[in-house]
Amino acid sequence: MEEWYPEILLRTQVIDKRIPDSRGFYGYPPYGSRMLVLLEDLFIGELERTGHDPIRTPTVIPESLLQIEKEHAEGFAPEVWVITEGRDRKPLNILKVLRPTGETLIYSLFHYWIRSHADLPLKTYERRPSFRAEPDNAIQPFLRSHEFYWIESHDAFSSYEEAVQQVREDMGIFEKIIWNKLAIPFMLFKRPEWDKFAGADYTCAYDTPLDDGKVLQIGTTHNLGQRFAKAFDVTYQSEENIEKHVCQTCFGPGIGRITGALVLIHGDDQGLVLPPAVAPTQVVVIPIPMKGKDEEVLAFSYEVHDMLKSRIRVRIDLTDNTPGFKYYLWEERGVPLRIEIGPREVEKQQVLIIDRLHQMKETVSKDDLVETVPKLLDKFTNILQDRARDRFRIAEVRSLDEIKKKLSEKVHLLIAPFCDDEECIEFLKDEYNLKVRGIPLFTKGEKNIKECEENYRIKDESTPCIVCEKRPAKRNVYMARQY
Amino acid sequence: MEEWYPEILLRTQVIDKRIPDSRGFYGYPPYGSRMLVLLEDLFIGELERTGHDPIRTPTVIPESLLQIEKEHAEGFAPEVWVITEGRDRKPLNILKVLRPTGETLIYSLFHYWIRSHADLPLKTYERRPSFRAEPDNAIQPFLRSHEFYWIESHDAFSSYEEAVQQVREDMGIFEKIIWNKLAIPFMLFKRPEWDKFAGADYTCAYDTPLDDGKVLQIGTTHNLGQRFAKAFDVTYQSEENIEKHVCQTCFGPGIGRITGALVLIHGDDQGLVLPPAVAPTQVVVIPIPMKGKDEEVLAFSYEVHDMLKSRIRVRIDLTDNTPGFKYYLWEERGVPLRIEIGPREVEKQQVLIIDRLHQMKETVSKDDLVETVPKLLDKFTNILQDRARDRFRIAEVRSLDEIKKKLSEKVHLLIAPFCDDEECIEFLKDEYNLKVRGIPLFTKGEKNIKECEENYRIKDESTPCIVCEKRPAKRNVYMARQY
Repeated sequence: MEEWYPEILLRTQVIDKRIPDSRGFYGYPPYGSRMLVLLEDLFIGELERTGHDPIRTPTVIPESLLQIEKEHAEGFAPEVWVITEGRDRKPLNILKVLRPTGETLIYSLFHYWIRSHADLPLKTYERRPSFRAEPDNAIQPFLRSHEFYWIESHDAFSSYEEAVQQVREDMGIFEKIIWNKLAIPFMLFKRPEWDKFAGADYTCAYDTPLDDGKVLQIGTTHNLGQRFAKAFDVTYQSEENIEKHVCQTCFGPGIGRITGALVLIHGDDQGLVLPPAVAPTQVVVIPIPMKGKDEEVLAFSYEVHDMLKSRIRVRIDLTDNTPGFKYYLWEERGVPLRIEIGPREVEKQQVLIIDRLHQMKETVSKDDLVETVPKLLDKFTNILQDRARDRFRIAEVRSLDEIKKKLSEKVHLLIAPFCDDEECIEFLKDEYNLKVRGIPLFTKGEKNIKECEENYRIKDESTPCIVCEKRPAKRNVYMARQY
Repeated sequence: MEEWYPEILLRTQVIDKRIPDSRGFYGYPPYGSRMLVLLEDLFIGELERTGHDPIRTPTVIPESLLQIEKEHAEGFAPEVWVITEGRDRKPLNILKVLRPTGETLIYSLFHYWIRSHADLPLKTYERRPSFRAEPDNAIQPFLRSHEFYWIESHDAFSSYEEAVQQVREDMGIFEKIIWNKLAIPFMLFKRPEWDKFAGADYTCAYDTPLDDGKVLQIGTTHNLGQRFAKAFDVTYQSEENIEKHVCQTCFGPGIGRITGALVLIHGDDQGLVLPPAVAPTQVVVIPIPMKGKDEEVLAFSYEVHDMLKSRIRVRIDLTDNTPGFKYYLWEERGVPLRIEIGPREVEKQQVLIIDRLHQMKETVSKDDLVETVPKLLDKFTNILQDRARDRFRIAEVRSLDEIKKKLSEKVHLLIAPFCDDEECIEFLKDEYNLKVRGIPLFTKGEKNIKECEENYRIKDESTPCIVCEKRPAKRNVYMARQY
């Protein structure tokens, strides 16, 4: 992790770790909270557009309920915060835990909410924090914390095909927000069997590349099949009056992790660089006063501010600071565009617009402002995309030596033939801190997941596993170091 | 509590108590969640308009931090859920509690966020659930639960006058939403000293009248003065370079309680009656098919639906149910307006609009629809206001016998001379389950709280307290039974 990361987050008022005795529990000042809200609203907008409705379920799960789906309970057992005392500090008969995720709560309600085929599909989302008791040394703002913000979307369908289709829909939402709006590069992987979500049929996960060569998982879609439906008896009466179990998916964009990723990916030595879509301030207006002309500069600055405010998030910096200090401050905060207004601009009824990365410097006349500024914001997003497009460093490797070499070059993804044996999984982890991320989904025009798997399957038995060099490799997998 | 209350909430899919081992922790299906979101968004809109920014702080408070403000810690001690175990179920050194309210967390951060007079006023809000371990027998959906939704707004100012002014601003927000949009009658009281928020200078609280004669507190504004600022060292450098403590207020509209109140106040034997501002569906279109005319009825219904959908929350009921059943269903759900469309309406290119309370029955031509429907929704809000306007039953009483009599008549508020002595406070509580709600604020054109207090102060010493009949009464206070 770059050293500047926690420091810049604190200095730019994005996240604050200074609550006493609260390591891993963060506060978010207005600037950071606004970013989180804007990001959540992007996802909620897409979820609503695709037919999802809000639901709310408790922060607290009785331990008894967590235990109903066995794999799931075992998966989360070490990570839960346990509530043992209630009113008047009396010990509880049934312990409660802070929810690590919502499946058990939500599906105990889906059991009641779904009766007939007419209730399906049921598509829902919940905007909320969740809780994992993480190892102390793993704590990093946004990347890993005891309380984290995400959106949980839980869907139920009458057919497995619809569930599979939902995975594609979620992927479309991710693409639309994470790449199109935030310029964060990502790849979607089908995780290997041994790394899937506890209780799922299979897990698809979104990885993004960080500078130090590690990847960060910023979201997941799980195809849960019918395992939870059977555990929680979530059934519906089909059109033929047959009682059937639903098929389920859940989608979890990691709001905190995405925010961390965009800081790490777009930020530079001057501080944050924010995509306009989540920038609390998209444009800052900076008056540059000059003796005898102060009033007209200020009046014109206000005029410009007021012209823009109904369409974009604009603010005007009226502090006593020098213009240079103001440039520095708002660049550090990552504001995409700044508008400079001095006496010359007043006279010519125009403004000077400069972007956070100093790749644009435009003189725009007052009459064109309202039309031009949104276009410049879009252009700024495109600049971010151009800078981020090729960030994934990927290499095919054929030997352990090559793995070592590529890792030292901070290559994110290593493609190698692998036998899937536990011994080899452990070796990679112990020796290189390397994990199998699975196989990429839908990068070669595949129509379904089976086709994707087929594309990475190794047919001839003569290719050995890169690790043990004795067992035949089953597939070409992607490996990476991860947060 | 009316018996129909929990039942109708479950049947109309507003709130669901059927999560196992989770008494007092509720799930909210899409219909109820949408109501909560709409209500929260009303408040957030007003808070943003008045210069508040979002913040986020943890769900979990270290016990050590809760204890910093002594009165506050004592007030909440019996009500906290206690987390004693963390990762791998290891016991915690410093216990954690689920936050009953955010003051201690937020002010430990305000300590850092506020440096100079330029940082003030700092006006913030947080949309979140909070937690109180309530007595088991007090649990009621929305009215009292272990986890409840609210918005916490925390403000800091450089002067006490601004803090007092904020109390008025909060009151304006409440009026605008609770009465103007939701048609919920309320009165604002300054609570007596012994019933103020733990740690506040004084507490103003909003009470609303329920049918059974009890009142329900649905929100509070506390003027915190400088007590928390001193406990948490929240200071600023004044313009004269002097280190000063800030003055603070906090405002907490009870999102859950307001929702419960509007169900109880507006609902009737047919079910919910929802104010348009928070109705998930404001208008339902019901096609009334007739042999041979089905297609044109359906086509016209869709047309009407599509005309309205960009301006209001409209849905069309296309189920196989009979029109009569549909009327029943959507009336139970409280939908303000229903549009009926049969062959005659198609022919005349008009619709029939009927409101949930059957006080309007309008024939509206297609061309006027887009303009007329929003007006009818406003009119429906006015109808609700007319029904609710005189719901507060208030009586002046002069003896304990009169108290008894008026309580049996389900009078909400009793005005009586009172000595403020603990003995009399206890007597009222033990004998009649009656609590002093304080004195009403700003009902007689008062300019400030002092004037309000003056208006209820008893000047002559010959008026005895209504309870003990020996000590002179200090003030005329309002008393009520409460949830």
